[in-house]
Amino acid sequence: MNHSQYPSALLQKAVTEISRLPGIGSKTALRLALHLLRQDVAEVDSLADSIKELRHHIGYCKVCHNISDTDICEICGNTSRDKSTICVVENVRDVMAIEGTLQYKGVYHVLGGIISPMDGVGPADLEISSLVERVQQGGISEVILALSPTMEGDTTNFYIYRKLQDTGVRITVIARGVAQNDELQYTDEVTLGRALAGRTPFKM
Amino acid sequence: MNHSQYPSALLQKAVTEISRLPGIGSKTALRLALHLLRQDVAEVDSLADSIKELRHHIGYCKVCHNISDTDICEICGNTSRDKSTICVVENVRDVMAIEGTLQYKGVYHVLGGIISPMDGVGPADLEISSLVERVQQGGISEVILALSPTMEGDTTNFYIYRKLQDTGVRITVIARGVAQNDELQYTDEVTLGRALAGRTPFKM
Repeated sequence: MNHSQYPSALLQKAVTEISRLPGIGSKTALRLALHLLRQDVAEVDSLADSIKELRHHIGYCKVCHNISDTDICEICGNTSRDKSTICVVENVRDVMAIEGTLQYKGVYHVLGGIISPMDGVGPADLEISSLVERVQQGGISEVILALSPTMEGDTTNFYIYRKLQDTGVRITVIARGVAQNDELQYTDEVTLGRALAGRTPFKM
Repeated sequence: MNHSQYPSALLQKAVTEISRLPGIGSKTALRLALHLLRQDVAEVDSLADSIKELRHHIGYCKVCHNISDTDICEICGNTSRDKSTICVVENVRDVMAIEGTLQYKGVYHVLGGIISPMDGVGPADLEISSLVERVQQGGISEVILALSPTMEGDTTNFYIYRKLQDTGVRITVIARGVAQNDELQYTDEVTLGRALAGRTPFKM
């Protein structure tokens, strides 16, 4: 037995499984496994069951494709939301982040990823054709592209723009600039260049 | 829905359960939950089942109380190990760390914790009486105390020493000093003081 060998096959199996999670190495996995051994059986079962149930029974909104326990999610089913504005995001975390601002009253379209040839993710793997259909059905005045300001985000923005440009809908993209509380001297050149190019009239 | 609200009760339940793990906050838990959603059902089931099995079926060695799938662990059952030397450690991770040095050929005694009044852990919660019995049964020449050099470790060392001092067994404690590759100027005063007090003849 050396540092990488465990005194129990059960422990080794659990550590191996836990360390498959992203960002969790074998040392952290061992720490978590030993923590679980000290918890009540009911608590450990509750954790394991919640993970299984999540994977087995998760559903998605038929309109915006966000994670949802109902056919139509709470946002799409909310009559006070502006259905004519669609904000296109990569995943549920982005929906939660934008909802957290309490600034947005429109609806979403969750792509379920971003075009990334390096990772083998193409347009067909994402909810892009369903977005085009949604816009073509009418009643949409604006599509806001709110993807990450990365090469992949730009590629995806461009692809969606090409698909939607003939529909006549207004297509916008979230502002790029210097982040709140960022120090100018540490801001990268691309961001600073874009912030300068995208300058707006000063308001008091 | 705001930043702390999830679009699905299943997702929320899983995130809540995962974030109960030590060192995992709700943001990391959400990232892990969404990662699991992208994995095959079989992989997620394998993770959940391994955690359950670990907790339900784990066993401990009847001699040294280390985690073991058999009544007597591999180390205690190994005829080439020196059964007359017992190294007292807090938990299985310490056993793995010492085994990793490839320097120790004796056996272990796993306390399953450390005396910590702050956390409500007293001597009766640990495998201390079983250690005393083991020594009293005879055949033991040395007990090495290898607990962490903390207040709790010192307290536990002292308690065990008092319990064993009448048995006549040799009781030793692992050396405390400056760690390999540590810079002297950043070493704390207690460690440096102990390293000076515990100085040994220079050997080429």
